[in-house]
Amino acid sequence: MPHIVEMTEAEQEAAVERARSLAEEFDRVGAEHDRDNTFPYELSSLFKESGLAGLNVPKRFGGMGADIWTTARCVQELARGDAACALAFNMHIGVIGFFTGMWSEGDQKRFFPTVASDGDLFDGAYSEARAGVIGLADTLATPVDGGWKVNGKKTWGTLSLVADYHTFNVTITDPDGSVPDDPIERGAREVMMVCRSDADGVRIENTWDAMGMRATGTETVVFEDLFVPEGDLVATEFRGPLFANLEWQTLTFSSVYYGLARRAYEETKAAVIKKSSGPVQGAANVRAKDIGWVQRDLGNMRVLNETSAATIETTAKALIAGRDAEWGPVMRLGLLEVPKVVCTENALKVVDTGMRLLGGGSYRRGHILERLFRDARSGPFHPLTTDQTLEYVGMAELGLFDPPPAEA
Amino acid sequence: MPHIVEMTEAEQEAAVERARSLAEEFDRVGAEHDRDNTFPYELSSLFKESGLAGLNVPKRFGGMGADIWTTARCVQELARGDAACALAFNMHIGVIGFFTGMWSEGDQKRFFPTVASDGDLFDGAYSEARAGVIGLADTLATPVDGGWKVNGKKTWGTLSLVADYHTFNVTITDPDGSVPDDPIERGAREVMMVCRSDADGVRIENTWDAMGMRATGTETVVFEDLFVPEGDLVATEFRGPLFANLEWQTLTFSSVYYGLARRAYEETKAAVIKKSSGPVQGAANVRAKDIGWVQRDLGNMRVLNETSAATIETTAKALIAGRDAEWGPVMRLGLLEVPKVVCTENALKVVDTGMRLLGGGSYRRGHILERLFRDARSGPFHPLTTDQTLEYVGMAELGLFDPPPAEA
Amino acid sequence: MPHIVEMTEAEQEAAVERARSLAEEFDRVGAEHDRDNTFPYELSSLFKESGLAGLNVPKRFGGMGADIWTTARCVQELARGDAACALAFNMHIGVIGFFTGMWSEGDQKRFFPTVASDGDLFDGAYSEARAGVIGLADTLATPVDGGWKVNGKKTWGTLSLVADYHTFNVTITDPDGSVPDDPIERGAREVMMVCRSDADGVRIENTWDAMGMRATGTETVVFEDLFVPEGDLVATEFRGPLFANLEWQTLTFSSVYYGLARRAYEETKAAVIKKSSGPVQGAANVRAKDIGWVQRDLGNMRVLNETSAATIETTAKALIAGRDAEWGPVMRLGLLEVPKVVCTENALKVVDTGMRLLGGGSYRRGHILERLFRDARSGPFHPLTTDQTLEYVGMAELGLFDPPPAEA
Amino acid sequence: MPHIVEMTEAEQEAAVERARSLAEEFDRVGAEHDRDNTFPYELSSLFKESGLAGLNVPKRFGGMGADIWTTARCVQELARGDAACALAFNMHIGVIGFFTGMWSEGDQKRFFPTVASDGDLFDGAYSEARAGVIGLADTLATPVDGGWKVNGKKTWGTLSLVADYHTFNVTITDPDGSVPDDPIERGAREVMMVCRSDADGVRIENTWDAMGMRATGTETVVFEDLFVPEGDLVATEFRGPLFANLEWQTLTFSSVYYGLARRAYEETKAAVIKKSSGPVQGAANVRAKDIGWVQRDLGNMRVLNETSAATIETTAKALIAGRDAEWGPVMRLGLLEVPKVVCTENALKVVDTGMRLLGGGSYRRGHILERLFRDARSGPFHPLTTDQTLEYVGMAELGLFDPPPAEA
Repeated sequence: MPHIVEMTEAEQEAAVERARSLAEEFDRVGAEHDRDNTFPYELSSLFKESGLAGLNVPKRFGGMGADIWTTARCVQELARGDAACALAFNMHIGVIGFFTGMWSEGDQKRFFPTVASDGDLFDGAYSEARAGVIGLADTLATPVDGGWKVNGKKTWGTLSLVADYHTFNVTITDPDGSVPDDPIERGAREVMMVCRSDADGVRIENTWDAMGMRATGTETVVFEDLFVPEGDLVATEFRGPLFANLEWQTLTFSSVYYGLARRAYEETKAAVIKKSSGPVQGAANVRAKDIGWVQRDLGNMRVLNETSAATIETTAKALIAGRDAEWGPVMRLGLLEVPKVVCTENALKVVDTGMRLLGGGSYRRGHILERLFRDARSGPFHPLTTDQTLEYVGMAELGLFDPPPAEA
Repeated sequence: MPHIVEMTEAEQEAAVERARSLAEEFDRVGAEHDRDNTFPYELSSLFKESGLAGLNVPKRFGGMGADIWTTARCVQELARGDAACALAFNMHIGVIGFFTGMWSEGDQKRFFPTVASDGDLFDGAYSEARAGVIGLADTLATPVDGGWKVNGKKTWGTLSLVADYHTFNVTITDPDGSVPDDPIERGAREVMMVCRSDADGVRIENTWDAMGMRATGTETVVFEDLFVPEGDLVATEFRGPLFANLEWQTLTFSSVYYGLARRAYEETKAAVIKKSSGPVQGAANVRAKDIGWVQRDLGNMRVLNETSAATIETTAKALIAGRDAEWGPVMRLGLLEVPKVVCTENALKVVDTGMRLLGGGSYRRGHILERLFRDARSGPFHPLTTDQTLEYVGMAELGLFDPPPAEA
Repeated sequence: MPHIVEMTEAEQEAAVERARSLAEEFDRVGAEHDRDNTFPYELSSLFKESGLAGLNVPKRFGGMGADIWTTARCVQELARGDAACALAFNMHIGVIGFFTGMWSEGDQKRFFPTVASDGDLFDGAYSEARAGVIGLADTLATPVDGGWKVNGKKTWGTLSLVADYHTFNVTITDPDGSVPDDPIERGAREVMMVCRSDADGVRIENTWDAMGMRATGTETVVFEDLFVPEGDLVATEFRGPLFANLEWQTLTFSSVYYGLARRAYEETKAAVIKKSSGPVQGAANVRAKDIGWVQRDLGNMRVLNETSAATIETTAKALIAGRDAEWGPVMRLGLLEVPKVVCTENALKVVDTGMRLLGGGSYRRGHILERLFRDARSGPFHPLTTDQTLEYVGMAELGLFDPPPAEA
Repeated sequence: MPHIVEMTEAEQEAAVERARSLAEEFDRVGAEHDRDNTFPYELSSLFKESGLAGLNVPKRFGGMGADIWTTARCVQELARGDAACALAFNMHIGVIGFFTGMWSEGDQKRFFPTVASDGDLFDGAYSEARAGVIGLADTLATPVDGGWKVNGKKTWGTLSLVADYHTFNVTITDPDGSVPDDPIERGAREVMMVCRSDADGVRIENTWDAMGMRATGTETVVFEDLFVPEGDLVATEFRGPLFANLEWQTLTFSSVYYGLARRAYEETKAAVIKKSSGPVQGAANVRAKDIGWVQRDLGNMRVLNETSAATIETTAKALIAGRDAEWGPVMRLGLLEVPKVVCTENALKVVDTGMRLLGGGSYRRGHILERLFRDARSGPFHPLTTDQTLEYVGMAELGLFDPPPAEA
């Protein structure tokens, strides 16, 4: 999908400002939901009220019409408030982006207007226990009159607790419920469907309890004989089109981790400025900011963040300028992952350095660096993981994909 | 203090075997106390029963008489069971080691026999909020008839919940309660005292709630008008002698993190052997162990662990052989810290790699890698922190310590 | 200086194409001059003929009028041909950039037209043996009738062998030849002068023989009683204005190392594709490109290069958009250095990985990776070095510069 | 082979002292041979005179009888003098070690006495252009009356210019000169032979010209219809026994790079102590040793070296204590490589840091750090390379070797 800029510059700045303002609310509640492992339900209405549910819904459906770069900037602001809350609501923003590239104009017309007007929230439940999003869907849709019966379990269902609609990938079976053994044939059966979250046959299992990103409500979505009518099959191909629009995941996830790392930097800098030892062996006082390696390490944190920022901006602007046309479909996916790899890995380095500069106090719960460190740690796991990305890029460059992987 | 080997080889192996056996109990309860942030009180009696409370108490006082290398090996085994429980009880083992070098024969005779016979437990509360163990004690002992009145707060009081005795550093004031401004003079007033944990004027504040090492009971010890009789001043100099015997901290802490990293390696290896993807795009199955970079990364984890082990063994054996006599007092401290730096930093790399190899499942609470990762993260904070050690070694080598730092 | 875009898009592409074409000549001779430690004199006329001597000379003086981003792109192309040759001629391009910001309109009018028309070449001899460019100039200009007598030695004089003009920083003495002891006062005496390279009192000492970047002609420029007339003092302040225009160094140097790293990547990729073992223990053949960690490492090389590219592009475009106005003068310098740190450090990782993937053959002279590795190694030394940059950024952020460092 | 300690402690120290003394000669000539890419022929007689040619020849053959740990210590001393010269003569020491485990008592009796008495020098030409030592020998021995005709080319023939005897691996052909296609069958034909270096049909091709380690004389040994009599087949199996005795390569190579890194550290430390800036912007002088990150980085260099030392010592002493019996034949090889990986990789970090601390001057030829940096760079290429080792250890641990790799 070509990336169109619908917003004026003033509208772009206003959107970023709106995110910055909402981020204050994220900041206010993030620590508590991390501690209690609870979802920030109270943010749901604030998010809807802010209008950001329609952030990247095209203007023709009543949305704000934000382009990918403006969207990324908004997510960065939200994450500076609280990374976990931002990652939660970013799920909606990300999948809306996917849908603009994956759904027919008709389906967009059907669902997008109430996203823009009422703040209808979507999630994207595309992972399962066996092999994450990389595994072909074990959730099955068996043909029945007028649609399908769907059964299966989706893990990593971020935002599922407050989503009005779930979207999910599913494998269409033969009438007898069987699926082809051949992975190519089986992959060709994978489609995307949508359902209301309050439909019969849908429930949430509360399975989320992780090292960090605890406020994301990343629960398990369970389908038990859910009936999906024909019209709610919203993409006849799943995997190829998803990867062909992956910028909506990679650039927004990058922005979450870059926003997190900026916050970590700001907190570290403020604390270093204040930190001093008082009387120690041989000195009446040592100010942390006078120590040469503290200065250099803090400088390195900033350089890492600037580097992260550069990868997001360059990639977003290349997309808007249409330069991705030259990348080819295989390497396009690889290049879209570059900012995610850089931003998530740099965030790990930033929080690591921050904790070292602040010392043992930052290891205690309640210290913001302790939380940011745990949140940052989820970065390398979002598929394509760092390792998968590097391997993918290498294999692509070595000519080992033929035909390209993003084509079913 | 010269390091004497009192044990026969068979006794050494028996001690290690005893630790290995107790480690099974550590393993059984570690996860639960991590989750609940509780101290493993039930291990206290098991530890006493095992006889390991007297592990490194010299034989002449009824102890097992373990040398520093055997002690380190025992701690490694305990940490393979559970790192946090091991770090807790290692506090006792570590300070007993300190006392063999810092206390008079008379004081050893007074306290050690019941350590060996009854499992009396000691802790060492040598840190305060202001600047950790690096700060000169703000806890003050004001001279009174027959002794001192002590007031102050000790943070990072590992094992304090079950210690029978607290030992602590304290600054002796002028009769009017004042302390010298000059840091040299003030440092000269720092001594070590001991008190029963059930003495009047001693209480524990429950402040421990950290990212990891949650089962260590690292609470705050509060002294409020505690009377300490003259005889319970057990070291007239604190800082110099402590650093001159620091192997009992550095080599046992190294062993905790090396033991932790071995466990992480074993768990990762076992999981990689089992891990396979099932049907994915373009393949019916991918076994993790067939992936080239998985093999290499797992190999690297093992190499890191072997490297850690080598630093502990070489240093311990150098001490036993008396080769530290050639190091000089300043660099001796630096070289003692080498294993701690290597083992704690390598442990971080090992758990990081392990989680990457195992994927997002290891980010969930309840997965042992998730816990080991958080536990490992405390490694760089134990003073001398990694950064402080490197700086110290560099300054020592550049001739910037004159007179040497370990001399008051 | 605001960054103005004078070129049309077609002119920008034409300039890049011209650099790409000249790069083929660089490629043809680079290996030989590296081996012989000789300057590529033959490239001098080719460079002049190509018109690239006037690349970033403003159009009003007859130049091509390239903006900083187009300039950086051209340098990248040159460096893909040969990094050392590119670094040599980049000296001219870089100082022309400096002069557009540091020189009066009159001086530009005096010198720039023949740069554009005849390819007059400039260098910038701003370093001395004592402390590089960081040291205040020990080269002295003593007032005499109508000008100054200049004496001193400039090291690291890249391109000096073919420069038509040398520019240099110099400290103006009292009439008796003395300089103030106070570093602030002394710094205020530092100015920039220009001289013809064939003037009396100027000679080159052949001192250049380094690990890499051997074709750069980085010789020593010696001034012995050189008379500089008043009009050839081209900047009454040296250091502040130089740092205020440092993008012409940092972004072009970044481009040299990014271009180098791209070349290293391309060569590595091509060689990996071809590499296979033939019969080894237990296998008839192993193709390098089928090994998982080879794929991942090659992918990482590409990701590193993309990251480098992003930092240059983002910074250059921020300058053109005038966003540096928000950075403040102190942090502006720090942010300008970010691409240089990232590109030079990433280049080191790229050549290191490349050599590991290709094996011992790449350690032999004559293998292009061997040369690129040595060339890359100069990256961290260009002032501000990597360490100096990180320290500078940290100190700036901690508020330790007051007044800002770039103001005399 | 069990490792026997034949030397008294005094003899061990005397051997180390002899190496230290010879190292002064290495130091005297190393720079010049690096510059000129010449072999240090003059060291050959000094090495023979020193008696170190017989260093690890068993006492029963007249040798000094050095164990593996004493041998490693001697090599460390030689490398502190000059790494390239040490690597050259270490080839002889290493293969003598191999032969003690690979050759029959009869063959040892035949060749070792003159090694001890006259300093006969051996090399081991076990690599070829196709795939290094990993590739099955393409050098072929065709059966003829009373022996074989040998034809082939051995690359990486360190020390070959002065060796009195070459040893080499070779594949025995069918009488018609053909070899089996099956790699297992072909591998079973690989044997070790020995020949005098002045035999008909042996010559050296001067091919050595590399980034570093230039004084090693690592030329190509060419066999053209060389007749090898039956008795000079000294090992009927090559690969398995070689790997089963690999400690003689891994621990001595480790020692070369550790010795190199110690020298780099000593030179850096001495230079940092002296380095100061003189007048710079805003300061009359800055001493390098007062900069916090310089102190920390220098400290890190020392810690890296101590870590390297620990891996050599621990492994050597484990071998002497016979603890390798518990390792199993597959992992034994992996564990033997640990010191080589650690020491070579740490050496790279040490020389990198050293150059950064010393600045651009260390990039110039003639500066010892420049040479040590290039020499260190060969470390990762010695087979098993770092990457091969990590992969090997991982595969071994994952149970992927069955039967073990070191068994034909």
